[in-house]
This record gives sequence, structure tokens and C-alpha cells, in this order.
Amino acid sequence: MDFELERYVAGILRDIRERGNDAVKEYSIRFDGYAGPFRVTEDEFEEAARSIPRRDREIILRTVKRLWEYHERQMERERLFIKNGSLYGIIYRPVRRIGIYVPGGKPLPSTLMMVAVPAKIAGVKEIAVTIPPKDGKVNPYVLYVAKLLGITEVYKLGGIQAIGAMAYGIGMKKVDKIFGPGNRFVNEAKRQVFGVVGIDSLAGPSEIAVIADETAEKEYVLADLLSQLEHGKDSRAWLLTTSGELAEFCSREGIEVVLCENLEECVRRANEIAPEHLEIITERPMELVDLIENAGAIYLGPYTPVPAADYFLGVNHVLPTGGAAKFSGVLTVRDFLKPISLAGVSREEFLAERELGLRLAEIEGMAFHRRSMEVRR
Amino acid sequence: MDFELERYVAGILRDIRERGNDAVKEYSIRFDGYAGPFRVTEDEFEEAARSIPRRDREIILRTVKRLWEYHERQMERERLFIKNGSLYGIIYRPVRRIGIYVPGGKPLPSTLMMVAVPAKIAGVKEIAVTIPPKDGKVNPYVLYVAKLLGITEVYKLGGIQAIGAMAYGIGMKKVDKIFGPGNRFVNEAKRQVFGVVGIDSLAGPSEIAVIADETAEKEYVLADLLSQLEHGKDSRAWLLTTSGELAEFCSREGIEVVLCENLEECVRRANEIAPEHLEIITERPMELVDLIENAGAIYLGPYTPVPAADYFLGVNHVLPTGGAAKFSGVLTVRDFLKPISLAGVSREEFLAERELGLRLAEIEGMAFHRRSMEVRR
Repeated sequence: MDFELERYVAGILRDIRERGNDAVKEYSIRFDGYAGPFRVTEDEFEEAARSIPRRDREIILRTVKRLWEYHERQMERERLFIKNGSLYGIIYRPVRRIGIYVPGGKPLPSTLMMVAVPAKIAGVKEIAVTIPPKDGKVNPYVLYVAKLLGITEVYKLGGIQAIGAMAYGIGMKKVDKIFGPGNRFVNEAKRQVFGVVGIDSLAGPSEIAVIADETAEKEYVLADLLSQLEHGKDSRAWLLTTSGELAEFCSREGIEVVLCENLEECVRRANEIAPEHLEIITERPMELVDLIENAGAIYLGPYTPVPAADYFLGVNHVLPTGGAAKFSGVLTVRDFLKPISLAGVSREEFLAERELGLRLAEIEGMAFHRRSMEVRR
Repeated sequence: MDFELERYVAGILRDIRERGNDAVKEYSIRFDGYAGPFRVTEDEFEEAARSIPRRDREIILRTVKRLWEYHERQMERERLFIKNGSLYGIIYRPVRRIGIYVPGGKPLPSTLMMVAVPAKIAGVKEIAVTIPPKDGKVNPYVLYVAKLLGITEVYKLGGIQAIGAMAYGIGMKKVDKIFGPGNRFVNEAKRQVFGVVGIDSLAGPSEIAVIADETAEKEYVLADLLSQLEHGKDSRAWLLTTSGELAEFCSREGIEVVLCENLEECVRRANEIAPEHLEIITERPMELVDLIENAGAIYLGPYTPVPAADYFLGVNHVLPTGGAAKFSGVLTVRDFLKPISLAGVSREEFLAERELGLRLAEIEGMAFHRRSMEVRR
């Protein structure tokens, strides 16, 4: 843990909690060089839409449609069953209000699509978006995507102050859960407000591992590995291969290469790494899937490069990084839904089985728990 | 946020990271008064089983069976589909190794059942359990439940040092995700190791809200409200009722009462509270379910008191507290599974649609992403 970062972020969040809007404004001036109103106006939305070429609007529409078609299959339905005259199961309710943080470093309309589409499918009623302004403006593509998805609440806010504003409800209604990637300040702020609100995950530098054999097109493999490194200097790329030729070809370009005895060993190494993205470009990629335990996403064959998945396949690109694939997974519609336990027990079932509860309450020394079961006739 | 607590816990965790086993041993002596070996031996398991009356062993067996039957319906299966000759979907893999923290304050064999049963159903391969020892011993019921579920790895470890040992792999193999409730020190430690490992949720003081009308048996309602307060002095209990008589009956016993105009208002108040448990004891309880947005669990009718659900119905008693029901839900088998995104795209589909990706990469200024799509023929 980075204690200096922790203390720094905690100080700013505390200041925002204590001084509210005044603090948010000051940090916005200091970090984003922005002193205007935060909420994006209807005029700005319209101006953004006008500034985008018709062809790009169509590209975005088609992409959103693909995302929608993929994610709507993930919708969870209640699972209820009746047993001994009693009703049991799980029902789902959407999180009422979410916040989406869109990073400003690179304008990433795809980030907003990836989070907002499953949110809408889940039935989230209110979506607030924050994005750090550049020269006082928000990237028009981000605004266009927002508008397209019926999101009208967009704020020119970035960094720690955006997370604080959403979590504590400063200058806006408090959200229930915060989504979206950010830099290390944003991540640390999300970590610290966890509990006050829900958070999605802590996204770190991007990663790819490629498992490839002798049949893989060398140019494809190298291009995919290099594309991942473009995200930033912390990004990682591993080649796990049985091909000496491919190993040499890629290591010459500075890629981390593990030359393996066989494909099973490649998978073993991949499971240890638990990469965000795992491409399998081998003769029969499907045959390795059963062996994979840890990965955010698995992309099979030569025509499923990570950038295609990042942008247009329709699958989600919000994935666990830094080994988090050992305990968490890809963003799904389920992340916007809450499972609620439901039970309605019949008198007969209750009376027939309550001796279990009476004795367990005794063992655990819970007299009033026992009494609540005993009092019923 | 409690900064003093945060600093205190951070200091101990750092010490454990830096000095390893020596630090864990020292804290164990200081906080648990225990200086012996941590791992529970085969002899201790056997002694525990022998010390439990046959009737109690049967009670536990029947309870575990009910839990198993309820939770096995929650198992997630892969959801794959084929479209335009391409394969898409989600596959699930269990978290490989988990840690379960069982609190020592009250010996709670039910805590272990509630976490371990869905873990086993999900297919978790390795389960480590920590529980603070009392006079050097572990509660025999907890050991019996562990044994019954095939868990052989139990450690006499409590508090911050238990969380540190599991998260950093001190004196045991590092776990991937930590489950189980604890006091505020344990909770804060879990919060701080989040990222290094996964965590389930941050359990706070227990809560109940009861919605009741004139038809509710007053004694039942009161007994349920009081049973929840037995968990500790921070526990909360609310009665939301349309009955003046019931309101008076319960407020005399010190219960927080909200007298409402009608049942819809009761539900509105319940949604604001977002209680861990919500009992509905009215003439037609099912008619209110559609209106409920925020609750960990909903229990319908006079024969579904919270203690019954806590112990023997088979439903899970690990639930969101302190308003967390606004963004999270009941523990399910899904919490032990990781969704992995899977895609295998056909050449035709890729070539037909890649223009979307090429343009989006351009808009986002990602040249190498673009190249990875362009290079494919």
C-alpha cells in the first residue's frame, strides 16, 4: 500500500466532506484549471451532437447496438421455487442511482458505453457521469454517447473531487455505486469511499497474455502484444508460446516471452499471471479453455484481437487487472443488480423444522433468537 | 471514516507484511493470549466431534442439508451463444482458494455453514478457516462443521493478524478472497487488504425492519424486533406499521416505531432505511414485494421470523447492513465464482464489422489498437 498516496487522498476527501461545494470548486480549479459551472447544459449536448460527422454517429450507433444485443442476454431474473408449501429464492432489483467516472486523459467514449449499456439493461433509473473538462469542455463523443443512452446528468468534474462529489452528494444527489476506471488518485479515492457507496473494481494498468503455437501468424501476435502496451508505460504484455521462431520474433521487439514445452504449460503460466486479457491463437484454441482458471477475458483464434473486443465485438472491456482475475471477473449486468433473499414459510414447515433453530440458538447462546421461534404456535 | 482506527490497523498490517510470522505470533499473544501452534490438528478435530452429543450432530447435519438444497439452485452455468458464426458469452470459474474468518465473540458455527456451503457448491478447491482461540481452544461445533464440509485447514487466529496472515500468506498459503464477518478491527483490516485479495463485504451491526398491519400477532412482531437487538448494542430495529395499537405495544419496549398512513408508506420508509432484514407481517404480504427496492432479505408472513432464516430455513444469513442494501445483496454462490468473458470471432464477422473498431480507435487516438485490427486479412 502506498501510504503517502493514501494520506493525500484521505485529506482531500475529508476536506470535501467538511467544506462541500467550496472545496470541490477549489480542487477543480487547481487540478482541472476549471472554474465554471459543473453541470453540462442542454446547449452543450446539442453542440456536441452537431460537431460529430454523420458517419461517426452511425459508427457509435452500430457499436452501442452490438453491446446491447450482447448484454441483454445477461439480464438476471428472479429464481423462486416452492417447497413444502413455502416460497424461497432470490429476486433482483437494480441499483437506483449510479455514478460513472470517465477519465479525461484520453477521451474514451467507449468507457461510457461499456458501463452505461449494462446499467440501462439492468434498469438503473439514474445515471450521473463525471469527466474532467479540457479547456472547459467535455469531449463531444462522450456527450453524444450519453445523450444516445438517455443520460442527461453529466458533470465537468475529475479526479478525487469527482469521486468525493458522487460519494457524499456534493453539488449533486449522492449516488449508490460508482463505476469507471481512473488514474491512481481516482482508484485510491474509490477505495476509500467504499462502504459509503459501492464501487465496481479497482482498474490498474492494462495487460495481455497471448498463448500461441507454430500456426499463429507472427504479425498478428506481435501487433496484439504491442497494442496493449500503448495504454501506458505500466501496461504488461506476455507471450506464452511453444514456437521458438515466434518467441524470437517478439522478444526482439521487447516483449516478455515465455517459451514453453507444450500448450498445457502455457496455460499453467497464464493461470499464474491471471491476465486481464488472454488470447489463444493456436490450431485448436477451444481445446485449452477447460484448463483456464484465471483470466478476465479469453479470446479465441486469429480474428479475436483484444482491440476488437475493446471496441466493437459487443463484449465488455471492463476487466480485472493486476492478478484480480483470481478473485473477480468481467463487468456484467449483474453488477448493477442486487440479489435480495426472499422467503415465505408455511406454518406447517416452520413448526416441523423449528427444532433445528431452537437448538442452534441454544448452542450459540442467543436466547431472544430462540424466543422469537418459540413464541409462534 | 475513523482515521485513528485506520492508522492503527494499517500499522499492524504493515508490521505483519514486514516481519511475517514473528509479528503474527506476537499479536496472537497480545490479543488472543495464545502462544501455541496455529493449525488445528487431526486429534483436535476428532476430540471436537466426540464432545458433541449425537442429537446435535444430527441437528447440524439436517441444517447443512437444507442449506445445500437451497444454494445448489444458485449454481451459475456458462452462457454461450453463437451469432454470425462467432462464439460469445460468459464462462464461470470458482475462486481457487478462499479464507473464512469466523468471529470468536460468540461461537458461531452457523457463520461457517453460511459461507462454506455455497463455496463448496461453487467448486472452491481450498478453504482456510481462521477463528480466535479461547483458552487455546476452538469451539468444537465450528470444528465439527468444518470437518463435515471437508475443511481440514483451520487456524487458531483472530483479529487483524488473521486477516493479514490470509491476505499476505503468512504461515499459510495466501488466499484469493476473504469472507466472513468480524468486529470493526477485522472489517477495517479487510477494507485495507482489498485489492491484494478480494473481500466479500463489510458486515456492520445487524438490523431488522418489520412492516406489520392490524392483523399481525403483536407478540411475534415484538419477539422478532427484540431478537435482532440481542446481537449487540449497535443493532437496530424498526417497526413500520399502520396499527396504532401495535405501535404502542412495541414502543413501550423501546423499539423505534414509525406509524404510517398506509402500507405503501411503510414500504417507502423501508426503502429509505434499506434494512438488512425486512419482515412483512400483513394480511397479504406478497402484494408489497413489487414495491421493495432496498433490503438484504424479505421474509413474508408470520412464520418467517429472522431467527428461522438465520439458522435453519436454508437461505443465507450473510446480508448487507448499514444501508449497503442500496448497492449490494445477499451472499450467493456467485460470490465464489468469477465470470470470464469469452469470444471467438469468425473471419467473416471480423472483416465485416472491423470498420467500427478502426474508426473508434482513431477517435480515441489509439494507433496500435488500430494497427492490430488492420493487419488482419
